[in-house]
Amino acid sequence: MVIVVKNQANTDSLNSLMSYLNQRNMTVKQTVGENRTILGLIGDTVSLDVDELYAFPVVESVRRIQEPYKLASRTFRSTDTVVDIGDYKIGGGNFQIIAGPCSVESEEQILEVATSVKKSGVNILRGGAYKPRSSPYAFQGLMGKGLELLSEAKVQLKMPIVSEIMSIDDIDEFEDVDVIQVGARNMQNFKLLKELGCINKPILLKRGLANTIEEFLMSAEYIMAGGNEQVILCERGIRTFETATRNTLDISAVPVIKRLSHLPVIIDPSHASGKAELVEPLALASVAVGADGLMIETHNNPQCALCDGAQSLNLEQFDSLVKKVDELRKFVVSHK
Amino acid sequence: MVIVVKNQANTDSLNSLMSYLNQRNMTVKQTVGENRTILGLIGDTVSLDVDELYAFPVVESVRRIQEPYKLASRTFRSTDTVVDIGDYKIGGGNFQIIAGPCSVESEEQILEVATSVKKSGVNILRGGAYKPRSSPYAFQGLMGKGLELLSEAKVQLKMPIVSEIMSIDDIDEFEDVDVIQVGARNMQNFKLLKELGCINKPILLKRGLANTIEEFLMSAEYIMAGGNEQVILCERGIRTFETATRNTLDISAVPVIKRLSHLPVIIDPSHASGKAELVEPLALASVAVGADGLMIETHNNPQCALCDGAQSLNLEQFDSLVKKVDELRKFVVSHK
Amino acid sequence: MVIVVKNQANTDSLNSLMSYLNQRNMTVKQTVGENRTILGLIGDTVSLDVDELYAFPVVESVRRIQEPYKLASRTFRSTDTVVDIGDYKIGGGNFQIIAGPCSVESEEQILEVATSVKKSGVNILRGGAYKPRSSPYAFQGLMGKGLELLSEAKVQLKMPIVSEIMSIDDIDEFEDVDVIQVGARNMQNFKLLKELGCINKPILLKRGLANTIEEFLMSAEYIMAGGNEQVILCERGIRTFETATRNTLDISAVPVIKRLSHLPVIIDPSHASGKAELVEPLALASVAVGADGLMIETHNNPQCALCDGAQSLNLEQFDSLVKKVDELRKFVVSHK
Amino acid sequence: MVIVVKNQANTDSLNSLMSYLNQRNMTVKQTVGENRTILGLIGDTVSLDVDELYAFPVVESVRRIQEPYKLASRTFRSTDTVVDIGDYKIGGGNFQIIAGPCSVESEEQILEVATSVKKSGVNILRGGAYKPRSSPYAFQGLMGKGLELLSEAKVQLKMPIVSEIMSIDDIDEFEDVDVIQVGARNMQNFKLLKELGCINKPILLKRGLANTIEEFLMSAEYIMAGGNEQVILCERGIRTFETATRNTLDISAVPVIKRLSHLPVIIDPSHASGKAELVEPLALASVAVGADGLMIETHNNPQCALCDGAQSLNLEQFDSLVKKVDELRKFVVSHK
Repeated sequence: MVIVVKNQANTDSLNSLMSYLNQRNMTVKQTVGENRTILGLIGDTVSLDVDELYAFPVVESVRRIQEPYKLASRTFRSTDTVVDIGDYKIGGGNFQIIAGPCSVESEEQILEVATSVKKSGVNILRGGAYKPRSSPYAFQGLMGKGLELLSEAKVQLKMPIVSEIMSIDDIDEFEDVDVIQVGARNMQNFKLLKELGCINKPILLKRGLANTIEEFLMSAEYIMAGGNEQVILCERGIRTFETATRNTLDISAVPVIKRLSHLPVIIDPSHASGKAELVEPLALASVAVGADGLMIETHNNPQCALCDGAQSLNLEQFDSLVKKVDELRKFVVSHK
Repeated sequence: MVIVVKNQANTDSLNSLMSYLNQRNMTVKQTVGENRTILGLIGDTVSLDVDELYAFPVVESVRRIQEPYKLASRTFRSTDTVVDIGDYKIGGGNFQIIAGPCSVESEEQILEVATSVKKSGVNILRGGAYKPRSSPYAFQGLMGKGLELLSEAKVQLKMPIVSEIMSIDDIDEFEDVDVIQVGARNMQNFKLLKELGCINKPILLKRGLANTIEEFLMSAEYIMAGGNEQVILCERGIRTFETATRNTLDISAVPVIKRLSHLPVIIDPSHASGKAELVEPLALASVAVGADGLMIETHNNPQCALCDGAQSLNLEQFDSLVKKVDELRKFVVSHK
Repeated sequence: MVIVVKNQANTDSLNSLMSYLNQRNMTVKQTVGENRTILGLIGDTVSLDVDELYAFPVVESVRRIQEPYKLASRTFRSTDTVVDIGDYKIGGGNFQIIAGPCSVESEEQILEVATSVKKSGVNILRGGAYKPRSSPYAFQGLMGKGLELLSEAKVQLKMPIVSEIMSIDDIDEFEDVDVIQVGARNMQNFKLLKELGCINKPILLKRGLANTIEEFLMSAEYIMAGGNEQVILCERGIRTFETATRNTLDISAVPVIKRLSHLPVIIDPSHASGKAELVEPLALASVAVGADGLMIETHNNPQCALCDGAQSLNLEQFDSLVKKVDELRKFVVSHK
Repeated sequence: MVIVVKNQANTDSLNSLMSYLNQRNMTVKQTVGENRTILGLIGDTVSLDVDELYAFPVVESVRRIQEPYKLASRTFRSTDTVVDIGDYKIGGGNFQIIAGPCSVESEEQILEVATSVKKSGVNILRGGAYKPRSSPYAFQGLMGKGLELLSEAKVQLKMPIVSEIMSIDDIDEFEDVDVIQVGARNMQNFKLLKELGCINKPILLKRGLANTIEEFLMSAEYIMAGGNEQVILCERGIRTFETATRNTLDISAVPVIKRLSHLPVIIDPSHASGKAELVEPLALASVAVGADGLMIETHNNPQCALCDGAQSLNLEQFDSLVKKVDELRKFVVSHK
């Protein structure tokens, strides 16, 4: 960590900063320039709070050199984390497509979708039961009933299931759920993250609409700090000025995260674009860029979907997409 | 609402859209252009889900004409909402400063700050007990103990108190709290919003880092739809590409919201800027632009603050600011 | 186009809007709702100015249905435009890599780089002569001398060349240049665009840092409206809150533009990421997403590059990248 | 400047960086940490190019401590710059309103507007002759003829005039123009900036839509480096995700720039909001925040304005606004 100190600083206030740093076991090396002094800090700076440092009047600016996270960092663990989802693996060279409807709507619907995506070669089923909707008047999901229907599909089709949690109060209903998803709007619901750090299940953490990659990894760190290291990161588009797409897929996030962290990273092209016709090109780009998987919305009848129909592929479109993804994936693996 | 339909649409798919709209009691008027047909919808479109409409293959685009919220809308209620906070009022011409430390740290600290801000003329005390921090290794607040200390200050100084809730599980500890704050990161924690709609206390709702004004009002609608109409909106800066300030204060949000909604709107210049030296000019601008109040962080010893010291004013700076705000406020009222 | 009109509007002001629309040969169909009236406009709305409409006090909002551009639009021309660059083609299934140094620095440098990229299989050479730099104290390019050296490389290696123009005053020096590039900062330098519309050379138009896809196509329209329809669009990253990369590559722009326009679209992963190590994954993603080409910075000695060394590949890295891109491109073509 | 170097760096590559720094007369102090080494640089770092440094493979990151501009910096010149516009002053405690139509449309129009704003107490007249429009089909201004009409108004009303230049080719026509405006889209048209640095007239430089405050000051530096130090900065809104306003007024830019630079800063609430009804509250906020002036669009008949009618005040609205601004300004000055 580097702290820039104003030169006009009086000795007292500089001393008070120095003693604060000493208490935290930092070794400090000074470089005195014309107008400012630079303090180079050596030690475990992860636990240093930048906000606290800024409160010292002598401090002009603080710059981190080391990442503010540890467990999620590749510096800390150099080999790729592989997460087990039922009998399937993701990360470290293992690629998975997670597919299913935006929301579970009925027994027929989820079974029809599950049967079809399994036939297309997909191993893992997703389905929304608790739905975060910006309007209180929109369909909010079947909730507990939705999870029951999803569990039924799990049993009948022998597919592990993924579903989104919106409140830790609902955790008991997620017993059968294999991977608990934290949605973009809850990426910094720290209370929820902490509690998920105490359970023993993979967590699929989606990036927030306006969160940096660093904040994304800090949220993963929240879960991991509690003891649960089975975290799958999911890039799903960020909010920018562009309105042609629902969000802007930050595809660079994949190679950037791969350098910073050992955790698996997947892409959700459905939410990133918000448009069914963009899902295929973005899915293929995701494979080429090196993602560990995809999460894609598909529906047996998108125009009757109770949410996000616009971005759902129908089952034929989805089947065609899986074939292309599989072939591209084979090409990528063989050309490494 | 206006739906743009592709002209190549076959009659069947257009009919299925029409029957969907009829079931929802919409009257539809068609305008047939060269390449597209425009459907003008008349009826209560608030409850129509844009996502569902997009799932019809014939639909090219959907544009709302009416706001997607009702209770929060000035069209629905034209007179300003006045919210009571203890014996004090906010909104409809009533202006309040809410002040106190980022986090409650000790009995001495909160009492010293409270005594001082009261002397400066402030009626309402704030203090953080549960703190949302991006790092799991940063100070997370005194939690329950913090609320106890805040309550003590409330009793001793006869000031209503404001504190942030991070999870509905903690609600019992908020019994003495007069205004429950929902932080920016929880603006779309819909489960939390719904539960706060069922209690009988003012809610101070902060705008999310990357949320539009429309989404902000939708979140207010979530609370109001549950029956709790005492919502105070707080603009606290949005996330942009600019890094000179922690966030970018969207000061235009005040006059924009004033036209769209009857709810009181305040500004938090501390979080908006992240820098103590910017708080005063931004506070004065907030008064001039027509805000109903301010929320400002102040600390008896900012350089020892356990969080956000960089943006906290010390008690002298704060006292000087209150004087300037009061005078400007008097000027503004007398020149209306 | 749809115009939403306030219902409280008096007849006079509505009539003045109506007569304005009639003068512009618009057929208007009204849909009267409870609070607003919707006017659906039929006619050639491309030339209607939204700003002018907003000046009528009765107008609440205006929404375009048709694109505000014509020549660049796929509605106007459904088949892909193929642009000829010397003996090479781009667009309509033709893929090209354009490579070379950020700036031309010396005869040896440009010849070494050109010889090497040609050997790697690249057909088109790029090199900066006039460099837009945010600091007046940074190296501004060799200017006219740089173009001379680039022309020499063109002759020696029989490669068409691409270089950026910063002012129409320099146009005479671009005689030998095969493709004139308009940089991101000049995307809305309308005077420059207009002049480039009058010449008979392909224009490589880069997207502005904060410009929407619609504005991007409007800038292409500026050039095309002057008679020059040889426009190549280049996505090079947009400005967002994320700081891990220099810009955020908006990879979705490729399939979005492909639907809206018939013009070729290429991607510049060097500027999009600003980091050499991200160029390869982003280049591969660009091929997979369907781009018509790539523009990549490469240098014989990146650490001595006079600009943008951080994002330049060395010649070996670049050669390896071209091989991978070629193989992926073959795969993509054979799996269409 | 601080350079972070990878510890695995071999001695050769570190040495090559060191000799580069020595050639540029930098004194370097090393702080060796566990994983990285920090180099603190002492010397005139303004002319060091961050891009060049990043090209050294040993360099992990570079952080500027000193601003990358000099002439525009308050460190370099501590007293406020006062710019003379005809007989009027701006900056250093002098406040000016610059008003007039978006574009000059006719002799009658410009004279009527000028007469009226002068009567309202405004000293400086603005009017667009060359108009940057995103559509090639929109009205592009009266160009040379517009400047003639503006000059006529200048003579008749004895008001200095401001108009926007779009290309240095048109400079001869700006002889009578007292302040040359550089529009937001040209803020990084470096060629134009350089040429304006060689003339002896005040330049009103508008902030680009997506440019940081640092880049804004760098563009001012471009002009000043040429010898022309009469630069007035104008904040006019930045591009964000929010669509309720045309742009997002970054009001914090005023106090931020006041600390970093000695140049006068004004605000353009018309372009910032794009809506006439928001101009007054934003103008008042601008006065309160400490701006040195305002630039406001006003028109004798906004609904017939040939551009930007939606954001223009009519002459009565404008007169009322000037009165409020004047009173608030008096209040602000008397309460300093």
